[in-house]
Amino acid sequence: MTYAAAGVDIDAGDEVVDRIKPVLRRTHGPRVMGRHGAFAAMFRLDYNESLFKRNYTDPVLVACTDGVGTKVMLAIEMGRLDTIGIDCVAMNVNDLIVQGAEPLFFLDYLGLSKVDPADTASIIESVAKGCEIAGCALIGGECAEMPDIYKPGDFDVAGFAVGVVELARATDPTRMEPGDLILGLASSGVHSNGYTLVRKIIEAKGLDLGTRYKALESDRTLGELLLEPTRIYAKPIVSLLRGYRVKKVVTGMAHITGGGLPGNLNRALTDDLDAVIDRDSWTVPPLFRFLQKHGKVAPDEMDRVFNMGVGYCLVVRPSFADAVTKKLEKAGETVFRMGEIVEGTGVVRYR
Amino acid sequence: MTYAAAGVDIDAGDEVVDRIKPVLRRTHGPRVMGRHGAFAAMFRLDYNESLFKRNYTDPVLVACTDGVGTKVMLAIEMGRLDTIGIDCVAMNVNDLIVQGAEPLFFLDYLGLSKVDPADTASIIESVAKGCEIAGCALIGGECAEMPDIYKPGDFDVAGFAVGVVELARATDPTRMEPGDLILGLASSGVHSNGYTLVRKIIEAKGLDLGTRYKALESDRTLGELLLEPTRIYAKPIVSLLRGYRVKKVVTGMAHITGGGLPGNLNRALTDDLDAVIDRDSWTVPPLFRFLQKHGKVAPDEMDRVFNMGVGYCLVVRPSFADAVTKKLEKAGETVFRMGEIVEGTGVVRYR
Repeated sequence: MTYAAAGVDIDAGDEVVDRIKPVLRRTHGPRVMGRHGAFAAMFRLDYNESLFKRNYTDPVLVACTDGVGTKVMLAIEMGRLDTIGIDCVAMNVNDLIVQGAEPLFFLDYLGLSKVDPADTASIIESVAKGCEIAGCALIGGECAEMPDIYKPGDFDVAGFAVGVVELARATDPTRMEPGDLILGLASSGVHSNGYTLVRKIIEAKGLDLGTRYKALESDRTLGELLLEPTRIYAKPIVSLLRGYRVKKVVTGMAHITGGGLPGNLNRALTDDLDAVIDRDSWTVPPLFRFLQKHGKVAPDEMDRVFNMGVGYCLVVRPSFADAVTKKLEKAGETVFRMGEIVEGTGVVRYR
Repeated sequence: MTYAAAGVDIDAGDEVVDRIKPVLRRTHGPRVMGRHGAFAAMFRLDYNESLFKRNYTDPVLVACTDGVGTKVMLAIEMGRLDTIGIDCVAMNVNDLIVQGAEPLFFLDYLGLSKVDPADTASIIESVAKGCEIAGCALIGGECAEMPDIYKPGDFDVAGFAVGVVELARATDPTRMEPGDLILGLASSGVHSNGYTLVRKIIEAKGLDLGTRYKALESDRTLGELLLEPTRIYAKPIVSLLRGYRVKKVVTGMAHITGGGLPGNLNRALTDDLDAVIDRDSWTVPPLFRFLQKHGKVAPDEMDRVFNMGVGYCLVVRPSFADAVTKKLEKAGETVFRMGEIVEGTGVVRYR
């Protein structure tokens, strides 16, 4: 018996490595160190000692891991593997920046049935694309062939992001006050949460991924709209926070993922504050209304599962809300003034 | 339709979090920062500024990701989920330390069909156990319920490790010289590579995981021997390197994983050096001979797939080989003097 006959093809893995090399390199800056035969990736924290020391006297590393859930199934069904990695990066770096961190580097783990060099490279290239958008380096990854776990064509992708924040500038929930305003940034679609429910609705109602439904108010198909990559908020948020190093006008942030607005914005609140959201402050995109109607999903359940059009929230000092809005709009974001912080019990309420 | 009916149970996830909390906390030191509602984990790099500054003038972060391959299938088949996380930590931190790094923290990603709170907590607790052995903090993780990807009872686990090394003390392959000696550290078994082949052999030959085969020369069953967790070399190696900060007597290291000794020790070599291994310098454990015999696996293939009893290698200056051996033995390792470095072409040869 040989290892190849048992289902593990080392040559195919080598071909993937050759294919992705130039794409990885595009995400690398002078802080990424390549070493002959390295067993692990190396990232120079203090690549320019004076610069680093000026910026950080008490650096805190911020780290998280996440996957993209069953959005992978949608990508597999549509045979589109060139954006799912962007989702994977987004799910992680959008969490990192909530703490006030700047993303530094990223690693990905890909579990699959069999390495098809073109498909596998396509997935990893989309991870690299996400890293470029987020401004972090893709410094490592693992591609595991596990035909006994994954069905042919299936895969799972998980990511791991590390960032850094100066301790005194890390998001501090205790600074939030009644009267602070809540700004929402538009999502690009369903992002990467709720796809198990999405796929059940599609299956139960016999919806077709390839159809341009009129109710979607778009020239794109249902499948294309659902596969739209998760928006990455890293660069605009990092740039905004850099501009307010001293004033610290941002008193809280939230990445709206599973749990929706009520299940994520609450994480930015202390026990004595509520976030009051004005439902009229933004328009729920047609895609969510379409899913709600076909799935006969209760409004509360929609709020708890989907981002409903708002992918990221900031809580800011009221006198800076206009300036922050302008900066974010200039960076390409669509900003909604969604409500305000009031005394309460740590929950998100609608009015 | 609701999210729970679609297959995602948020309450079960919360129960897992409650169960693992105390175990996670055991891996935390003063550098791990808990924050209310944190979206990402925070690890204070400079928790004691004077200490940090004394140790690091040019810190390099070292990071890697790895899973445990199809060893998960064996754990599933045997219904033993309380050690597989140790393997996951081992696969990562053993790679980190090759670069001379000290492991700082770890995160895990668990993809599965459905969260059974007891089983899921058991897996994560075994990750925490591995982190304790390795001396790093388990600061985060993700547990993804994906019933469309994973069959009931199946799962995949991936880990991400971050460490730090002072640039001037990072492993530097160019320092290796002809005459340097190769030390091997005994493995605890098959570790976490080659299980796809192992399982094919078991299936093809109708071997029984519950049997105590005489040829195994052990009072443990075949399954127990195969599931033995991967040895974690982090603490002995970190301690050894700390003791030789100035002398730098270790000129190269290798974690022996897929590819075996010839496919991993070569990664420590520059193009003009060979590693010459004396086959008589250690005894291949009965488990490997048993697999080779039943699978009729060619000797070369065995060398390329399995660690054959040696899980980690160090290359050291000859005059320090005795001292290094003594230190590692004192730390509980079994050390083999396996051969030496000679002029060559960057390959591993046997004699």
